[in-house]
Amino acid sequence: MEQRISLITLGVADVAAARRFYERLGWSGTSPDGEVVFFQAGGMVLALWGRELLAQDSGASDGGGWGGVTLAHNVASPAEVDAVLEEVAAAGGHVVRPGRPTAWGGYAGAFVDLDGHTWEVAHNPAWPLTEDGSVRLP
Amino acid sequence: MEQRISLITLGVADVAAARRFYERLGWSGTSPDGEVVFFQAGGMVLALWGRELLAQDSGASDGGGWGGVTLAHNVASPAEVDAVLEEVAAAGGHVVRPGRPTAWGGYAGAFVDLDGHTWEVAHNPAWPLTEDGSVRLP
Repeated sequence: MEQRISLITLGVADVAAARRFYERLGWSGTSPDGEVVFFQAGGMVLALWGRELLAQDSGASDGGGWGGVTLAHNVASPAEVDAVLEEVAAAGGHVVRPGRPTAWGGYAGAFVDLDGHTWEVAHNPAWPLTEDGSVRLP
Repeated sequence: MEQRISLITLGVADVAAARRFYERLGWSGTSPDGEVVFFQAGGMVLALWGRELLAQDSGASDGGGWGGVTLAHNVASPAEVDAVLEEVAAAGGHVVRPGRPTAWGGYAGAFVDLDGHTWEVAHNPAWPLTEDGSVRLP
């Protein structure tokens, strides 16, 4: 199994509402079938799909709530962390941790989207972003 | 907020055991602090970290179980889907859906890792992989 991820699918209660949230953050998606929405994200894809359908398709038993997965969006400076968190709050996301210095020498905050999926927004000076926004481990 | 994901962190019960599982699949990771493990995955990073620590850090209330997130690993042929699923089973993962043709014209199966994180392994003829294994939406 090659060391890469092709797609992350987030199960959501209302695909159209979830799509509008990510679009308010400036993302642009497509929905070939009107049921699932795809966002190109670097060399992979973020998808939004009904959570019940995703649970069934994944063979998962869904008790609701959080499942031990957090996404992160890294940016080039602490000021950008704060700017993204402001943008998220304006778009209807919930900032669960404001931007602040971290124990690992960076600066980060966190938010949840409309469906409780958790994101960290971080500046990590030890992980400079490449020109296309990729992260490369040192 | 730019349209990209920098990091996916999977909360796990035993970081060393989870790391060994992904290493048995042929992945190679690093752990700068002995607490979190990072795997370079294309232009992003997959991380393994204690689930309790991740929940706390993400401001999430963790009731256990699945949380509506599924990862996918796309490959170039149906035969590769079956080969990856065999590799996963040999490494101690649990195949929850064997490889079979899908409604969307591809071929896919699904597995869960040691901590119940769900993965689809798929061949999608409409999404050819680039040379570096990236997925580009048509």
